[in-house]
Amino acid sequence: MFQSFDVTSTPQFGKARVEALRAAFDALGIDGFLVPRADEFQGEYVPKSAERLAWLTGFTGSAGVALILRQQAVVFVDGRYVTQLKEQVDGDVFQAGDLIGEPPHLWLKHNGKKGFRLGIDPWLHTGAEVRKLQKTLDAIDGSLVVLDHNPLDRQWTDRPAEPLGRVRIQPLDHAGTRAADKLAAMADAIGKAGAKAVLLTDPSSIAWTFNIRGSDVPHTPHPLARAIIFADGKAELFLDKRKTGIEEEAYLTQIASLEAPGNFDQRVSALAAADATIMIDPDQAPFAIVEGIRHSGGTVLEAIDPARLPRARKNKAEIEGSTRAHLQDGVAMVEFLSWLDGTQPGTVTEIAAVEKLEACRTAVGERMQNPLKDISFDTIAGAGDHAAIMHYRVTTDSDVAISDGSMFLIDSGGQYVNGTTDITRTVAIGVVPDEQRRFFTLVLKGVIAISVARFPRGSRGVDLDPLARIALWKAGADFAHGTGHGVGSYLSVHEGPQRISRAAMQEILPGMMLSNEPGYYRPGAFGIRIENLVHVLDAEPIEGGDLPMLAFATLTFCPIDRRLVLVNLLTDEELDWLNAYHAETLEKLTPLISDEKVLAWLAAATAPLER
Amino acid sequence: MFQSFDVTSTPQFGKARVEALRAAFDALGIDGFLVPRADEFQGEYVPKSAERLAWLTGFTGSAGVALILRQQAVVFVDGRYVTQLKEQVDGDVFQAGDLIGEPPHLWLKHNGKKGFRLGIDPWLHTGAEVRKLQKTLDAIDGSLVVLDHNPLDRQWTDRPAEPLGRVRIQPLDHAGTRAADKLAAMADAIGKAGAKAVLLTDPSSIAWTFNIRGSDVPHTPHPLARAIIFADGKAELFLDKRKTGIEEEAYLTQIASLEAPGNFDQRVSALAAADATIMIDPDQAPFAIVEGIRHSGGTVLEAIDPARLPRARKNKAEIEGSTRAHLQDGVAMVEFLSWLDGTQPGTVTEIAAVEKLEACRTAVGERMQNPLKDISFDTIAGAGDHAAIMHYRVTTDSDVAISDGSMFLIDSGGQYVNGTTDITRTVAIGVVPDEQRRFFTLVLKGVIAISVARFPRGSRGVDLDPLARIALWKAGADFAHGTGHGVGSYLSVHEGPQRISRAAMQEILPGMMLSNEPGYYRPGAFGIRIENLVHVLDAEPIEGGDLPMLAFATLTFCPIDRRLVLVNLLTDEELDWLNAYHAETLEKLTPLISDEKVLAWLAAATAPLER
Repeated sequence: MFQSFDVTSTPQFGKARVEALRAAFDALGIDGFLVPRADEFQGEYVPKSAERLAWLTGFTGSAGVALILRQQAVVFVDGRYVTQLKEQVDGDVFQAGDLIGEPPHLWLKHNGKKGFRLGIDPWLHTGAEVRKLQKTLDAIDGSLVVLDHNPLDRQWTDRPAEPLGRVRIQPLDHAGTRAADKLAAMADAIGKAGAKAVLLTDPSSIAWTFNIRGSDVPHTPHPLARAIIFADGKAELFLDKRKTGIEEEAYLTQIASLEAPGNFDQRVSALAAADATIMIDPDQAPFAIVEGIRHSGGTVLEAIDPARLPRARKNKAEIEGSTRAHLQDGVAMVEFLSWLDGTQPGTVTEIAAVEKLEACRTAVGERMQNPLKDISFDTIAGAGDHAAIMHYRVTTDSDVAISDGSMFLIDSGGQYVNGTTDITRTVAIGVVPDEQRRFFTLVLKGVIAISVARFPRGSRGVDLDPLARIALWKAGADFAHGTGHGVGSYLSVHEGPQRISRAAMQEILPGMMLSNEPGYYRPGAFGIRIENLVHVLDAEPIEGGDLPMLAFATLTFCPIDRRLVLVNLLTDEELDWLNAYHAETLEKLTPLISDEKVLAWLAAATAPLER
Repeated sequence: MFQSFDVTSTPQFGKARVEALRAAFDALGIDGFLVPRADEFQGEYVPKSAERLAWLTGFTGSAGVALILRQQAVVFVDGRYVTQLKEQVDGDVFQAGDLIGEPPHLWLKHNGKKGFRLGIDPWLHTGAEVRKLQKTLDAIDGSLVVLDHNPLDRQWTDRPAEPLGRVRIQPLDHAGTRAADKLAAMADAIGKAGAKAVLLTDPSSIAWTFNIRGSDVPHTPHPLARAIIFADGKAELFLDKRKTGIEEEAYLTQIASLEAPGNFDQRVSALAAADATIMIDPDQAPFAIVEGIRHSGGTVLEAIDPARLPRARKNKAEIEGSTRAHLQDGVAMVEFLSWLDGTQPGTVTEIAAVEKLEACRTAVGERMQNPLKDISFDTIAGAGDHAAIMHYRVTTDSDVAISDGSMFLIDSGGQYVNGTTDITRTVAIGVVPDEQRRFFTLVLKGVIAISVARFPRGSRGVDLDPLARIALWKAGADFAHGTGHGVGSYLSVHEGPQRISRAAMQEILPGMMLSNEPGYYRPGAFGIRIENLVHVLDAEPIEGGDLPMLAFATLTFCPIDRRLVLVNLLTDEELDWLNAYHAETLEKLTPLISDEKVLAWLAAATAPLER
């Protein structure tokens, strides 16, 4: 299993650990200290060795930050983690903060005492974050104390070793573009910007640029590493050699000089000392690096990570690989859903469902000679009212059987060498009340609206987001998350800059891969989400049209539960889409399935719906 | 007539005038000079005395700016004026610039010579504009020369006198809120912001705050004036007394001290010299005022004009007034449309139609004892391919008869003391080809989408704009203007900050009044626009919904041409809306019409459509 259901939180240590941390404040000359969930690489997943927030507070969510003051300790989380926070931390020690409405820099602005001294570990915060903190501290006549060591790390005596996950070459068949060509394009951009070099500090950018994958953190196959790319096309990759085999080392040394990670700081300082202008992404790079350049006399040129946009625009090989990965993943989903339908309602627990689904992905991967490398993220499997918790993660404590007459929401994905998948289906267990079916149908209308949308070049995610919501809005409802996030190619399942949301100002460009996942959540009652992945392409010209348009092509093929659809709420166009989608699902998956029972289930689950 | 069809451009003077202007460059120490369309008040309409751009170049459009260099002269206009510019200016003297893609500050960045010295009249540019220019000039080692007089004005010997349009009190029945209460609320906000006073530099803000209306410029009934509002609730209004009668003066002196406009600068300087912090809107106020404050030692606090958002949120009296104004305007439109339908196809010219429509508005105004005070803007009346020119303004040179078998687009509005209207109808003259009817129906789908939309509080115009476009997008088409603009209450027909467009980040709030006007334009062939005004209100709660929603209520009632609708392209919901809208139009307008022929036309024009 790539997922654990254990209750890993250890709230009982919080009090003593916070007190020990406070004991260091005087010597450090600080009145408070920030402990973010983020590590030195700012990724969504961090290795065990960097789970500082969980170690200190007990909170294990994927986003958050603790602000430890002399008399107070606040853990800031977003809406999806409010309940989890209460369960995981010692309420006598920690209070809850609002990561979105009032993040630490705003909290300090409103509550910080005049002259407040805030300590930070400059490796755990980006330059952009530090800028906000500095502004707040200026406003309250306070000061930012950039520490040269992390006092928590000194205290954490049994801290696990840093990971040494194996690095593999991502074959050109899947990567589609040679690393040398990516480096040449980057070198060109560096030169045009008038810089000497760019620092790549995002491990996913390293993985994409050098066509390698790693295994340092769960669910995202990138190696924790850094790189310097020069305007002359040379590259230095700071990657622990213990992570590579002979083959990988031979490959990498052809395109870069391989350096020990410990040499990175020194190398950057030397460059800076030689008056170099160095490009760096202030939203991604640790403040320590930015400061290091300035301190050594270099010039910082703030610019978006040069791998970010090209990585988002998948090439032909990546789209073809993802298409195949999605068909394989669809087969696993169909095997799982047909199994679930064959069970007695009320008998299957959430954990049993998650285990079965991973077993299906593993078995199909072996059969199709394209093994499941990992799951894309911890599966969200919510029975009944658990489905209303948007990022519910089942544990042995929370596990329940999916009861008869309720809906079951399962959001999961697989990492395959040819692609990353992410799919959500909400299915009926027994007979579901019409009111829930009505909302299922309204959510489905949102999915279809995105699926059939065409839009002019220049459109941004914000221009598509309302299409997924208007059916719900008209019913007096909405959902409190974005409509879609970018997805990587055998990389992070949450990839920027592309997304579909009210804040998405990035232009949607051909080749981008995104999720299409409207939902609806009624707390304490039920939750619905339907998610397909899509990629962006030039739309076929339409008779009578006069403007070239973009459109989405759907990658995910898996039945959407017909039993939950109220056909009368669909327009003809919507019903046509659903029937065509099901017909295509049947056609594409049938050749990949041999089990007669599964085939029969698939045929029934994709039969046309009629009025 | 409130509109002239004369060809007023005088391109023949451009050469001599530009040369005379250039002759002043050496003495002024400049290499170039900007001549904007805007005047000292930054309004959409300027008085004859401020038509500098037209005087210099011949170009009479409502937006543009000329950059006069020693060897070149560029007139920057947006897409809608490209053709008009060519016709109105001397091509040997002036070249065209792109006001949107490459406005003067960007043009200078790309083309300006190192050390370039740009002269400006600081009364004709906002602080925000000057900031952009300064940044560009810094980049090319140039300098901004802020002139103490406008060299063009010295040359313009027969310049008309400044207007002395009569000011009237806007009765409380229509204004809804007492000026004293508006001033008190403003004073409160000034105090909270820690300022001494706010400068109101937008004439529409003056009109709204003091509950007065003026007649200095065409079509927008605000008086050219300025005001200072103090934190203690006192107000100084800088308005030429020749514009008021005894009654208005008596009213105004109760709430403000009336000052001569010429004293404004001196008064602001004195305030600034006394160390005051003064609030001012950098997007609206002339740079000369901002600079004046700084120069005299005052502190500038940049803030949005405090009248802007409250003015946008209409009160009960304003909405009720507008509702009545729209019914009256609907009657005038119905009389006009029924007349047009009774004419022989191919016989009515664009000018004749505009004249007839204004005559209808005038006659209905007299009959209903609520006279047409002005038209809201020059009527856009486009026959056939003229309708594809988005801001077409018919002249005696361009006038044609509306030919049989084509569509006629007429976009117009009236200024009444109880409200400002703005309506566009596109109607069939004879039998129109199905391809044009198809696009008419797609545009109509956009109108309906906005009309029936519900949306959560917090939604911005950008979140509604795509709903008006998706039907066209799916057909490979779009329209190159916003979906809706804000509208004033017997004030400017184009009012901010509310709007519906891809750039509209202002939250939509209850009471706001907006246009709903999707369109489609095929250059050289045909053009379509359908426009209703709407206001924003709390939506009725819906059974099963769990979120309070906002919705639009339609103000405009006038038939939408049924002959142009392809019923099969409408969903049931859309068809129901159209039939209900027509039924309501019939019900609301019938009691206001006595002419039997017009009533018969209205009944036929609003009869339900069936599949």
